Amino acid sequence: MTDPAFIKQYLMAAGPTPVPPEVSQAMAEPVLYHRAPAFIELYTRCLKRLPTVFGTDNDILCFASSGTGAMESAAANLIRPGDRVVVASCGKFGERWQELGDAYGAEVAFHDACWGQNVDPADLERVLAENDGAELVFATLSESSTGVVNDAGALAEVAHAHGALIVLDAVSALGAVPVRQDELALDVVVAGSQKALMCPPGLAFASASAPALARAAESPGRRYYFDWNKAAAGQRKDPPDSPFTPAVTLFMGLDVALGQIEREGLEAVFARHALNALAARAAAAALELERFGPDDDRANVLTAIRLPEAIDGAKVPKLMRERFGITVAGGQGQLKGKIVRIAHCGYYGAFDTLVALAGLEMALRELGHEVELGAGVGAAQRVFLEAGVPAGSPA
Amino acid sequence: MTDPAFIKQYLMAAGPTPVPPEVSQAMAEPVLYHRAPAFIELYTRCLKRLPTVFGTDNDILCFASSGTGAMESAAANLIRPGDRVVVASCGKFGERWQELGDAYGAEVAFHDACWGQNVDPADLERVLAENDGAELVFATLSESSTGVVNDAGALAEVAHAHGALIVLDAVSALGAVPVRQDELALDVVVAGSQKALMCPPGLAFASASAPALARAAESPGRRYYFDWNKAAAGQRKDPPDSPFTPAVTLFMGLDVALGQIEREGLEAVFARHALNALAARAAAAALELERFGPDDDRANVLTAIRLPEAIDGAKVPKLMRERFGITVAGGQGQLKGKIVRIAHCGYYGAFDTLVALAGLEMALRELGHEVELGAGVGAAQRVFLEAGVPAGSPA
Repeated sequence: MTDPAFIKQYLMAAGPTPVPPEVSQAMAEPVLYHRAPAFIELYTRCLKRLPTVFGTDNDILCFASSGTGAMESAAANLIRPGDRVVVASCGKFGERWQELGDAYGAEVAFHDACWGQNVDPADLERVLAENDGAELVFATLSESSTGVVNDAGALAEVAHAHGALIVLDAVSALGAVPVRQDELALDVVVAGSQKALMCPPGLAFASASAPALARAAESPGRRYYFDWNKAAAGQRKDPPDSPFTPAVTLFMGLDVALGQIEREGLEAVFARHALNALAARAAAAALELERFGPDDDRANVLTAIRLPEAIDGAKVPKLMRERFGITVAGGQGQLKGKIVRIAHCGYYGAFDTLVALAGLEMALRELGHEVELGAGVGAAQRVFLEAGVPAGSPA
Repeated sequence: MTDPAFIKQYLMAAGPTPVPPEVSQAMAEPVLYHRAPAFIELYTRCLKRLPTVFGTDNDILCFASSGTGAMESAAANLIRPGDRVVVASCGKFGERWQELGDAYGAEVAFHDACWGQNVDPADLERVLAENDGAELVFATLSESSTGVVNDAGALAEVAHAHGALIVLDAVSALGAVPVRQDELALDVVVAGSQKALMCPPGLAFASASAPALARAAESPGRRYYFDWNKAAAGQRKDPPDSPFTPAVTLFMGLDVALGQIEREGLEAVFARHALNALAARAAAAALELERFGPDDDRANVLTAIRLPEAIDGAKVPKLMRERFGITVAGGQGQLKGKIVRIAHCGYYGAFDTLVALAGLEMALRELGHEVELGAGVGAAQRVFLEAGVPAGSPA
């Protein structure tokens, strides 16, 4: 067996995702002092570019933290102890909202749409009707544990009809699928750097509407580092000033990544994600593997594929990594060993998808599942060729 | 005037500090998946090496955040609403403890030792006597705003005599001066990556004793991302697993930086900081500039120098940066325009100190202050030569 040190590595996880070499190089430049003009210039540029990706005119509040930090910022700024809140979950990250609600003293009405299902707006309607007075709904835009992408606009409508604000975890959605925060009236959207923004983990973002910021201002205390109004006050200064030392190298990378997204064009970025997902779905069908999750065309962040029951599914990502150097994500929690996740979020082109699919075919064959080598790859190739473009790439 | 783009840049701030090229290069390597063996191996190595720098056997709990995040973790895990706590402050970062105490609902007894003064253990004794029942003391080990390094052992003794736990902000102290957490019985020490650990900002650390962790466990809730016991449970798994996506590239850098500290030797690292500080103090004396702060030999993280009153002090760092490309920190808050801070924390060798001093002399001359060019530099050179070593450097 080849020494693992000499197997070429392909990072194909749904986060951390691969980072463009130009972004990595920028982060290796000498560190900038956060109050020096050179940093302020690129920080200002990032703050100006971020709202476009969210589809908003809001300030995008930036934190040095994991994506969970931005989720916590929403809980800490919006929940007052004893508040009744609704969590509409369909996977691991939906469950995190419940944990945050509990931690911040909310009375959480938890709706479980089941892992792999969309949250049905009619169910949210029912739960809100049963929980009169709930002023906050927490939900997930893209559920990274399963690939489900919820209908944010429909959920927002239901929440608003009941006088509630809606808070959406868009950690893996942002930059992969349209978020359209202002158009869909999404009150709060939180996200992170390590998915489709093509940066390493360590930056988190919260985009809060004026009513959400006002609610936060009405109940100060119980937070400091993640305080929205403190962050907003700093970022609105001229020049903008983070209240705490920002993660300067990550901003140096983000500046380059946002420039790449701008040059490729946001619509082209979304189209690239959609095409990669379409190709992965075609491959799964050709391999007679069941797609995990609802059959809709919103799920373009990652494609979850159910593994054959006859094989030990947990071995699929292990074998792909150890033998082929390909790091893909398997299932988490209750889906451990049951699915494999083919990621499209971020710096993924057509041939990355083909690599992941080729590795999956080979792993399945090695684990004893009958599979026609090249069948899935071929189906994906056809999708790419029929679309007339090789699924672009950031420039 | 030379186009600023062509002036060679020297980052000489007290944080973010300059990062060794080897650390920068490591962070530009392809991003690792946080659950892949390659990351787990280096993450485990970091977790094993960090306690040595703290002088403890505690687990060092790691967070993706600014140093303030680790400070907040202490407030969030230890303070119960209504708790009486004592904050012993001597500068900007001491005041941050008060803000955190307020945010978490503590009744804060605030002792202000004044910016630039040590916290006198006798004063802490008095404040604790006046605030019977205070179970927590928050203080600063190295006050980055002024350069003061407090006598942590003496403060801990007083706190313990009153039955209180002591929490120390060692953000700029860790790796620059001995912390000796276990020897001095420091209950909680918090720190960050962007000072003497020679990494960019974005990682924060909390080292909590068993009693401190127990106190946290007794009052769960009101925190999630910064929950100590959640972090400890993840890090103690085999293999260790961060509860939230860790800032992988920063850990890739930290791994290299901790290796450099290990090879140089921790005592040699402290000696290098002390020698640089001694040289800077000698230079200030030779230039007939007053050192800001108490005249002790603990203040080896940075040397604060009072600027002549006849000149506009705010112009010193500005001119040094714009004309000479040297970024040093001036004064913050009430010290704005009054001091300049010559940093020694982290990746600083003898000739870096000479550069900063040379730039300072030239800036003072340009601003109209009579100064003999080379006088301060010469005094510093003498200190270095007399010590027989050129103040080392991480290998």
